[in-house]
Amino acid sequence: MKLTPHILTLLLAWALPSLALADPLPSWNSGAAKQAILHFVQKTTDPDSKDFVPPQERIAVFDNDGALWPENPLPFQLAFTLDELRRRLPEEPAWKDDSAVQAALAGDVPALLADHYKALSRIIELVGSGMTTEDFAARVRAWFSTATHPRFKRPYDQLAYQPMLEVLEFLRAHGFKTFIVSGGGADFLRVFTEKTYGIPPEQVIGSNTRAVFELRDSGPVLLKTMNNLFMDDGPGKPEAIHQFIGRRPIACFGNSDGDKAMLEYTTISNPHPSLGMIVHHTDSEREYSYDADAKSSGKLVAALAEAPKRNWIVVDMKTDWSTIFTK
Amino acid sequence: MKLTPHILTLLLAWALPSLALADPLPSWNSGAAKQAILHFVQKTTDPDSKDFVPPQERIAVFDNDGALWPENPLPFQLAFTLDELRRRLPEEPAWKDDSAVQAALAGDVPALLADHYKALSRIIELVGSGMTTEDFAARVRAWFSTATHPRFKRPYDQLAYQPMLEVLEFLRAHGFKTFIVSGGGADFLRVFTEKTYGIPPEQVIGSNTRAVFELRDSGPVLLKTMNNLFMDDGPGKPEAIHQFIGRRPIACFGNSDGDKAMLEYTTISNPHPSLGMIVHHTDSEREYSYDADAKSSGKLVAALAEAPKRNWIVVDMKTDWSTIFTK
Repeated sequence: MKLTPHILTLLLAWALPSLALADPLPSWNSGAAKQAILHFVQKTTDPDSKDFVPPQERIAVFDNDGALWPENPLPFQLAFTLDELRRRLPEEPAWKDDSAVQAALAGDVPALLADHYKALSRIIELVGSGMTTEDFAARVRAWFSTATHPRFKRPYDQLAYQPMLEVLEFLRAHGFKTFIVSGGGADFLRVFTEKTYGIPPEQVIGSNTRAVFELRDSGPVLLKTMNNLFMDDGPGKPEAIHQFIGRRPIACFGNSDGDKAMLEYTTISNPHPSLGMIVHHTDSEREYSYDADAKSSGKLVAALAEAPKRNWIVVDMKTDWSTIFTK
Repeated sequence: MKLTPHILTLLLAWALPSLALADPLPSWNSGAAKQAILHFVQKTTDPDSKDFVPPQERIAVFDNDGALWPENPLPFQLAFTLDELRRRLPEEPAWKDDSAVQAALAGDVPALLADHYKALSRIIELVGSGMTTEDFAARVRAWFSTATHPRFKRPYDQLAYQPMLEVLEFLRAHGFKTFIVSGGGADFLRVFTEKTYGIPPEQVIGSNTRAVFELRDSGPVLLKTMNNLFMDDGPGKPEAIHQFIGRRPIACFGNSDGDKAMLEYTTISNPHPSLGMIVHHTDSEREYSYDADAKSSGKLVAALAEAPKRNWIVVDMKTDWSTIFTK
């Protein structure tokens, strides 16, 4: 048989796994991280593989700030909160005498974070409670439609990481159910996750409080309160995964020590094969560079140290990603 | 043109809506309830209908006890709890001196329910905390594989209502996402809902507590506690729907006053068309007959009185259902 180019193509198509024919992760440079994602999805979804995982068990969890979009110079929800504080200040004269408000208006982040985030919690209470969930969502939507990121000069919800959007899409195309498990507020996240990440509200786990049901003349509402505040961070993440999902994930993507517990929950002694991945911010030119020295959010020390022992893949943003943001 | 049988069939297929060709609800007798379900699904899923609802907004919520399976002579989770108490009694000698245990072993339901379910909560704490979530699930599975219902002489998880299974399947076949919103414990429900109802754990909302994450030598576990007990009943149901789903349902199926608030949340001033339905237990021969006089669970007075005003459909189990249980 003469090996014409046509026959060669056919042979290649037959010999290579179908994944190789079209690159599902074009914004990932060739390397260990990209290879790990491709290999994991291939082996867990091939019915003939010993590592096959039934579709209903294919749960993938993603941190948000620093894992799916930036968290600098401030986490975006904090930027919203400060903007909202300024916007409403004229109609809330009592706020000016509040020391937490003063710290916020002065941009004094250390003061906001001191004493277990006491002043920050107060600001979040002022801006994020006492209205209905629909009112709050409308305010968040209005902010996204007007505010722009100070460095990248784009609306905040157009700053998703293109390589991570490709991972989300690739996983879903292979029967995975993708969830966000974020320290951010669920009511804030749910305004944009469906449009930005293709993740519907019912697959968004975030920090949350208990809203109170009221049947008003105008119809039923849920009134936002600060009752039963739950911070979805650290060990709270696997605890919330159990509460909301009720199954152990097989893939977990994070970027900070706040994701360590959910990485452990996903990958240690899991009866299924599993994938743990840490986005390491190493690109000060195109995005930011930080780990132990993170300022307001995203400190990465313990999880990075644990990565080799647990076989967690550390993504080097600078070398692994050919593109950072969506077009 | 001669109307041969073949042409007649073609004409009929063209003239009738596709729903009419095969009955998706064969265990429902013809009547207003069946018609309401068929009509609601038809109009919300027909892209040419003014009542069309996009697939991602097609959220349907179902109570469990009394709506998807019986709640007599005791709610099934209470039967499990009492059986489990008896099973573990020999290894827990201290329990015998506990007044709540004594009430439970004597079958003294009023004593268990008195004082805001104080004794019942104590029993649930003894049987349902202090072990890992996996241990608890294994115990529930073991119970389902051995216990049988005292009247129907079948394993409890083979007592789902056939007509409701048909509704679940019919809705899902038309792009609805089906959720359970139950006063029962989420960790109990999630053991059987996927197999019994086709509803995966992540679409099960129930009463819940906060499990605590621990990384043990054997791997990560979640330890069941009684911390942050949340009772998913009454106004708690719409509150939990917001917390877990983050969207308003457009269809709601309940059977008791504990479902009234979520029926209101679903149907009053909803920008989308909506369906509210109450299963009325009217069949003492084939199942049970109760409403205001419900003994331990399922009291139905206020929601039944509100039904006409809200256009909630009341299902008369005796006349609307041709079959009660799965085969």
